Amino acid sequence: MLEFRKDPVIGRWVIISTERGLRPNDFSAASPPRSDKACPFCPGREHLTTPEIYALRDSHTQPNTPGWTLRVIPNKFPALQIEGHLRQRADGIYDKINGVGAHEVIIETPDHEKTLADLDEANVQEIFLAYRSRILDLHKDKRLRYVMIFKNHGQAAGASLSHPHSQLIATPIVPKRVSEELKGSEAYFRYKDRCVFCDIITQEMDDMDRVIEINDAFIAIAPYAPRCPFETWVLPRHHEAFFENTPDDAMGHLASIVLSIMRRINVVLEHPPYNILIHNSPFDYKYPEAYHWHIEIMPRSTWVAGFEWGTGFYINPTPPEEAAEFLRKTRLTP
Amino acid sequence: MLEFRKDPVIGRWVIISTERGLRPNDFSAASPPRSDKACPFCPGREHLTTPEIYALRDSHTQPNTPGWTLRVIPNKFPALQIEGHLRQRADGIYDKINGVGAHEVIIETPDHEKTLADLDEANVQEIFLAYRSRILDLHKDKRLRYVMIFKNHGQAAGASLSHPHSQLIATPIVPKRVSEELKGSEAYFRYKDRCVFCDIITQEMDDMDRVIEINDAFIAIAPYAPRCPFETWVLPRHHEAFFENTPDDAMGHLASIVLSIMRRINVVLEHPPYNILIHNSPFDYKYPEAYHWHIEIMPRSTWVAGFEWGTGFYINPTPPEEAAEFLRKTRLTP
Repeated sequence: MLEFRKDPVIGRWVIISTERGLRPNDFSAASPPRSDKACPFCPGREHLTTPEIYALRDSHTQPNTPGWTLRVIPNKFPALQIEGHLRQRADGIYDKINGVGAHEVIIETPDHEKTLADLDEANVQEIFLAYRSRILDLHKDKRLRYVMIFKNHGQAAGASLSHPHSQLIATPIVPKRVSEELKGSEAYFRYKDRCVFCDIITQEMDDMDRVIEINDAFIAIAPYAPRCPFETWVLPRHHEAFFENTPDDAMGHLASIVLSIMRRINVVLEHPPYNILIHNSPFDYKYPEAYHWHIEIMPRSTWVAGFEWGTGFYINPTPPEEAAEFLRKTRLTP
Repeated sequence: MLEFRKDPVIGRWVIISTERGLRPNDFSAASPPRSDKACPFCPGREHLTTPEIYALRDSHTQPNTPGWTLRVIPNKFPALQIEGHLRQRADGIYDKINGVGAHEVIIETPDHEKTLADLDEANVQEIFLAYRSRILDLHKDKRLRYVMIFKNHGQAAGASLSHPHSQLIATPIVPKRVSEELKGSEAYFRYKDRCVFCDIITQEMDDMDRVIEINDAFIAIAPYAPRCPFETWVLPRHHEAFFENTPDDAMGHLASIVLSIMRRINVVLEHPPYNILIHNSPFDYKYPEAYHWHIEIMPRSTWVAGFEWGTGFYINPTPPEEAAEFLRKTRLTP
């Protein structure tokens, strides 16, 4: 079974995906992390993965052999499948859509032992360029409306393999959290005739209390109402609705600020698990003047995450002004 | 600092509460659970807690001494404080309210070693009656608009003490997830002139695929679009917007079905961490015909929770039909 189902009360879509073949006991919180000894993302084990759909590799090497610095592959256990026509239909009072979409893995480096924060700026820029390339390619598929790009680092953040990687899920529907942001941004725009994120950037640059870092193209802030301690947003300083419109040189600035933030978070929180999520506009979004793409970085603490996820209520013991100050003052050794 | 802050894009309120005195490193995912040796919720240690505001105890015992079977106390490290006037104000383009509200702990049994599933039906009925009593009492406070009652069991579900307890947070605002449910239910009611939850119950009782258990007053189902494996909802079979309107005898039926579900979940998922949450109407809710209170039970698996919380996207590998069948077929030893 592979289908999107809609909650009839809240309108939230959930993917029911049994393809991963997990049984009830596979969900025990005590299940150990998978062994690293036969990591399928390491060079020399390309035959263990699905064939690559994008790679940066030495010009004299063949696809699906060693010699690469970055690979993109379809997820071997996809939550969605790229084949099939889109069929939306009723199921009594409920609604469902068959599970058409894409689920890809971006292997960020051949080096199993590294983390994102250990990579150099050029590597990280290549990761962002790979995201852009995949979004532009998936945009050609007219069944798809949204590409969500995310990175889970550490078991507590949902990572099942430790080799540095991120994931991409392309869906025929716009995820609920994204629709909410779009709706909120559009309402603000109708009222003020300005982008709410542009207004946030202006106020943050006036106050400076919650600003962590600024470079030529990006700003990193602790948001005013953070859901968890040290939540950080990275936004392009100039209005832009689409991540994929970011030019090459700005991708360098993005790599620089994201690397710097991750290194600061590693110092202050002692290498926490974390999630990184790109909040982007849907394909062909009609109000690009209202929305402003950005990255949200959520360091994870089991205590806080457990509480919030269960209750739907966010209680954050660290004011963003204090988190920003901790991160700003952190000295990074080169 | 103790204040509600509103996210200017999505409109989500977050409580910034520094009263707990945690420093950045207190959030390390690796921090060990607190020792059970000096549990402040155990009999004989009543002096370690704040004075009780409700208790079931032997008639010849004094408050805040042993002899009780259930106690309700203000949380010693409250996310909110009951003192103070409500002040909502702007903070540049942002909005905030000072952190007025109540945060209470319901100690469910004197027996440290038990879990909810080990209690007998009469005990569990008393827990629900205590919730009702606290809601009715807090309703008298005109600053408050909502009471959220939840139970976190296990460290992965956000519990910091293992002694069986639940919590109550009363707030001057309606939490976002609740507002969304109310909005969705009202929209359905305007369109169909029927309660969406009543329609769900009717369809589920026709299909029976997702029904786990039914008694005279309640039904337990696996919802059509569950966020996690074995998510379970318990709903009153007859329309009712307010939990606190539940009469004593129906509280007995509620205790019976919740106990049975928790015992089934413990068998199938081998005693997982979990969250239980009561979804109730706000005080003086104007459209009680549209909303239907219910309980949501979310067994926790770190893998799934991490992924979803980070990405805002729910991927569930267990269809609710299969989860319901597993739970339905479970034999409970008396």
